[in-house]
Amino acid sequence: MTTMSAPATGHDDHAGPDDAATARVDVAGLSELLLGRWPDQRRRARARAGDPFYAKDESLTPTEHRERVLEQMRAMVASDDKLSWLAFPERLGGFDEPGANLACFTELVAADPSLQIKSGVQWGLFGAAILHLGTPEQQDRLLPGAMDLSVPGAFAMTETGHGSDVDSIGTTATYDPETEEFVIHTPFRGAWKDYLGNAAVHATAATVFAQLITNGVNHGVHCFYVPIRDAATMEFLPGVGGEDDGLKGGLRGIDNGRLHFTGVRVPRTDLLARYGSVAPDGTYSSSIDSPGRRFFTMLGSLVQGRVSLDGSAVTAAKLGLAIAVKYGAERRQFAGAQGEEVVLLDYATHRRRLFPRIAEAYAGHFANERLLDLFDDVFSGAQDTPERREDLETTAAALKSTSTAFALDTLQECREACGGAGFLTENRITSLRADLDVYATFEGDNTVLAQLVAKRLVADYGREVKGATRTPAGMARFVVERATSAALHRTGLRRAQQALADVGDPRRAAGHLRDAETQRELLADRVATMVEEVAQAMRPALKADPAEAARILDENQTALVEAARAHADLLRWEAFTEALATIEDTGTRLVMTWVRDVFGLTVIERNLTWYLLHGRLSDQRARTVTGYVDRLLRRLRPHVVDLVDAWGYGQEHLRAAISSGAEAERQDEARAYYQALRASGNAPVSEKALRKKEQKQR
Amino acid sequence: MTTMSAPATGHDDHAGPDDAATARVDVAGLSELLLGRWPDQRRRARARAGDPFYAKDESLTPTEHRERVLEQMRAMVASDDKLSWLAFPERLGGFDEPGANLACFTELVAADPSLQIKSGVQWGLFGAAILHLGTPEQQDRLLPGAMDLSVPGAFAMTETGHGSDVDSIGTTATYDPETEEFVIHTPFRGAWKDYLGNAAVHATAATVFAQLITNGVNHGVHCFYVPIRDAATMEFLPGVGGEDDGLKGGLRGIDNGRLHFTGVRVPRTDLLARYGSVAPDGTYSSSIDSPGRRFFTMLGSLVQGRVSLDGSAVTAAKLGLAIAVKYGAERRQFAGAQGEEVVLLDYATHRRRLFPRIAEAYAGHFANERLLDLFDDVFSGAQDTPERREDLETTAAALKSTSTAFALDTLQECREACGGAGFLTENRITSLRADLDVYATFEGDNTVLAQLVAKRLVADYGREVKGATRTPAGMARFVVERATSAALHRTGLRRAQQALADVGDPRRAAGHLRDAETQRELLADRVATMVEEVAQAMRPALKADPAEAARILDENQTALVEAARAHADLLRWEAFTEALATIEDTGTRLVMTWVRDVFGLTVIERNLTWYLLHGRLSDQRARTVTGYVDRLLRRLRPHVVDLVDAWGYGQEHLRAAISSGAEAERQDEARAYYQALRASGNAPVSEKALRKKEQKQR
Repeated sequence: MTTMSAPATGHDDHAGPDDAATARVDVAGLSELLLGRWPDQRRRARARAGDPFYAKDESLTPTEHRERVLEQMRAMVASDDKLSWLAFPERLGGFDEPGANLACFTELVAADPSLQIKSGVQWGLFGAAILHLGTPEQQDRLLPGAMDLSVPGAFAMTETGHGSDVDSIGTTATYDPETEEFVIHTPFRGAWKDYLGNAAVHATAATVFAQLITNGVNHGVHCFYVPIRDAATMEFLPGVGGEDDGLKGGLRGIDNGRLHFTGVRVPRTDLLARYGSVAPDGTYSSSIDSPGRRFFTMLGSLVQGRVSLDGSAVTAAKLGLAIAVKYGAERRQFAGAQGEEVVLLDYATHRRRLFPRIAEAYAGHFANERLLDLFDDVFSGAQDTPERREDLETTAAALKSTSTAFALDTLQECREACGGAGFLTENRITSLRADLDVYATFEGDNTVLAQLVAKRLVADYGREVKGATRTPAGMARFVVERATSAALHRTGLRRAQQALADVGDPRRAAGHLRDAETQRELLADRVATMVEEVAQAMRPALKADPAEAARILDENQTALVEAARAHADLLRWEAFTEALATIEDTGTRLVMTWVRDVFGLTVIERNLTWYLLHGRLSDQRARTVTGYVDRLLRRLRPHVVDLVDAWGYGQEHLRAAISSGAEAERQDEARAYYQALRASGNAPVSEKALRKKEQKQR
Repeated sequence: MTTMSAPATGHDDHAGPDDAATARVDVAGLSELLLGRWPDQRRRARARAGDPFYAKDESLTPTEHRERVLEQMRAMVASDDKLSWLAFPERLGGFDEPGANLACFTELVAADPSLQIKSGVQWGLFGAAILHLGTPEQQDRLLPGAMDLSVPGAFAMTETGHGSDVDSIGTTATYDPETEEFVIHTPFRGAWKDYLGNAAVHATAATVFAQLITNGVNHGVHCFYVPIRDAATMEFLPGVGGEDDGLKGGLRGIDNGRLHFTGVRVPRTDLLARYGSVAPDGTYSSSIDSPGRRFFTMLGSLVQGRVSLDGSAVTAAKLGLAIAVKYGAERRQFAGAQGEEVVLLDYATHRRRLFPRIAEAYAGHFANERLLDLFDDVFSGAQDTPERREDLETTAAALKSTSTAFALDTLQECREACGGAGFLTENRITSLRADLDVYATFEGDNTVLAQLVAKRLVADYGREVKGATRTPAGMARFVVERATSAALHRTGLRRAQQALADVGDPRRAAGHLRDAETQRELLADRVATMVEEVAQAMRPALKADPAEAARILDENQTALVEAARAHADLLRWEAFTEALATIEDTGTRLVMTWVRDVFGLTVIERNLTWYLLHGRLSDQRARTVTGYVDRLLRRLRPHVVDLVDAWGYGQEHLRAAISSGAEAERQDEARAYYQALRASGNAPVSEKALRKKEQKQR
């Protein structure tokens, strides 16, 4: 280490002269890379999403929209490529390709989020419940109707009284050995099934989650296949009732509704029996002993909803950003230095609004790719271990809760960045945002998901500590290491070291930040430290009485959620960094490295207080973060249109009047008008100009 | 000063035992106080907003909704109290009460934002243009039709090509001395008037902004009264054309549209001539010499739009918060320490989501009250000075850009805090949010407004410096003071002093933060320092060539916007603190002081990096901020329902199924069911409980 200044390399401290020359984006090549592991399927799904037949028609009434979406789904079933069946068993006409299935599902958001989510209800929830919770016999018997839409189905898990806490639902399924039937029953209003897609109008059956009671014992929540409507008359079957959820903030092409059951009888064999079954005499049996683990295994098999919402949210954010960037690259407002009006993207504030979100969309994209890998490993059976399942569930919860929030924030920023034009439905963004809104709370409320993630992180930390401190020597080392680390950070020793290293050279401080290892260390250290801190703070809860334990949890709840978010940031950064290595074109890799740096450094910038108070960054280095990010944003300016083009969405996907080049045409027309006017000699002089002239002459 | 610990006063370091006992909210008293300066008018306006006749009907098609809103406006005109006419001259049937008018207008958002904004277009823009830009003769001639809705009007300022930059609009009004007429003309597509309420269907006239050209000179933007439709047939008049803007993200009860003009002739006397007129021979004259100042004076007279959007945004946020808080106070999810399910508001994360926003809504309320005072002072003529006008414009820009962003963020958080129920239109929040979305960009794009504010702050700073440094002694003092201050902060001396003062007592650090003077100093110092820093950084631009000046501005643009936001935070904190002094009830003042502290400290928490890097807070004090805020939030828990009730909105305003007590009823029913089941002896035992028992017996 030396305190001498590094040689100056010009105004730009990141890219040398060579760099500046090589920076470019090979749009076609990057686009190909982004197609990921199942490029052909994804390409077909994207083409389908750009087919006008599947495009959201904003002019329809909610009733018409619901019917149209059903019609679109029927067309999907009738189509040759059967993309909706990718996840289903080959023996039933499917393809056994769970990962490819989700990749394709993700693309559907570009057509119409209502179509996506109603498809998700039919094939990803109703169908998937039969697939994952049913026995092979039940799959053979019940899946074909779900697959070919001859049985539109609802997924009846959530109740008015219980959303996130599925374990506490009120619906009961009581076994009657005399008739070998289960009696499905809704004991009170709060136990009505609620918010169910397909339930208000189209569903003729439902997978109903209920407390399984047999021989006087409640074995917890299980899933039952329950016909609910007469397919001919579409009237509710005896004992079944319900109502329409009515209008919603978005997704108006889906018929969400409520269902309730009064002594509805289904055969014993329609308990989806993969993880638990009841013999004719009422004896319950399960391959999983612990009722708790059994419950989480059943729910865990439905993780694909979260995986696919994560990818869909990133896709929706991309669509919004592509629209706003294309408009921002043409739209001009207020005259600049040379008299000509300035393009919006040339304003620092506009770059700040859009570019870091482009970087985050890329990070989210790569993280979703890794999540799809993990999902496919588990659900294809290639690596279906309890550990991988647990990883998958934690990662899905971390990313879904992050990306859905990101998408909403981004779509809002994009809408505002397009001004009044952004508010018009013809420019798409408000429509997308309204539809995406509920992604933040369905398939797991984001705040609840973040807590799940944090609990897992804290549990892992606990296991590690237990492992490391099993011997007295290990314990001693552990204690010393923790004490040293705390002393180093809290006393500001590390900050002092950084300050010394950077003396006299602010560029060295910025150079430090652009180093990938530095970014990784800063992001990873933050997660580890937050988890350790919150784990330590919560230790007393283990031995406290319930009230005191609740108080301790309450005091640490916000920190738990923060730790989960930090974990998601790290996951995304790591996925992005891994992906960089796979980019072969030098110029593209350079630009994408800047994009990755923007992601990493804006995450660090958002959490700068934490880094300062935990002694991870000196004041001097912290001060350089914002300026360095701003410089990176300027450097990315010539490449951002390429960067959004590489996502591979054309006008048939964006479908926004302002992203079509109309704005540039209008400006050309105006410019031509003023030029002709000046040439004609009939142009009025401005009073302002006259007065300036007068003043000069005085 | 001593380093001895203060005597312990129990777990709670803010409120002593006496405090805890006195803390309460006198809901009726506080509610009365919040009615502000025009309590009777506001009460009437609020009653009107709660009248079902004016309530938004979510079931209507956009076409039906537009007609209904017009019908509601006709009813408002026909009503006895004529609240819509408060701002108009007494001689024409009005009341000359500009401030009261805006207070009442603000309430209308609770009925239907479409009704509010369409009213705003008719009376606050079209009518106000005639009132403020017209001569008394023009007011007498043109206002009655605007007031009684016999002439529905559009306010035709914005063009497709120019929104924020009004100065550059393309529409021309060329004077023809032969016929003594102006020829209104749209030279190209970008100059079409766009996004105009009333223009698509209902307007028969418009106040059209155009470049006034006479005798070959362009005198800049002026406003013209232009009939556009035949009132009998509702066909466009010759030369006028246009189209519907179609669907929008919200405000679908308003017929926004586009207009264009081809050689449309209006009499010379229909130039609204208060600030500029043309003699029959074409000679232009104005009471304001400078074309720039004339332009800003004309536009400035329309500031009431911003003032009223500020108050309306705060009101919309209150409605969302009241719904989410009432639901959160009843809704339970997941079993807590005692087995019973926990009320959402008892979760730390839920408190963090809602309570700081309640505090910010209060701060926004009081700031809007002060803004209304300022507005009334100027527009009633009581204190109509150029300085007051400038203050009014700056404050309106600062608050409007802050509160509209706050409202959107808050409504989204409220919607998510209500889970899936929040997404249903019957629970109101998504509907309110969709309507409020465009408030962020109309009447001035928020980012552009923030820059206006910052420019004013920087200019004021420049004037101060000029004043202070006029003599050599003044200059010397100024330089020394700046150097000392910079040295004190940057070297961390002040932080070191704080750290010394707090040694051994974290409570002292928190005590410091709850002191109002500390909060004021932290907030005010931040604004002053940011303005000074950005002013200094931009000084070189004064002497630079245009390109270099543009680069310097670009580098500082983000900082300018940040400074404007910091200014708005200070304004709101000061208004809140002033208001505290007017609360007579001790218990209420105590609770409201906590609320003010939450506002002040969450602002400081958001900007903690700045305070650390500028040496304003020691690490030790900074570390206490979050914990102290969390403690305040727990302390406010028993009072939050009272705090939202004090805003004075009943079920007739909230109109959300989940805020009506239905959730508590459902829970009571479920509880009664389970109690009866247990009492009957027929309750199933849970498998979990059985297994625990077995394990114990082993």
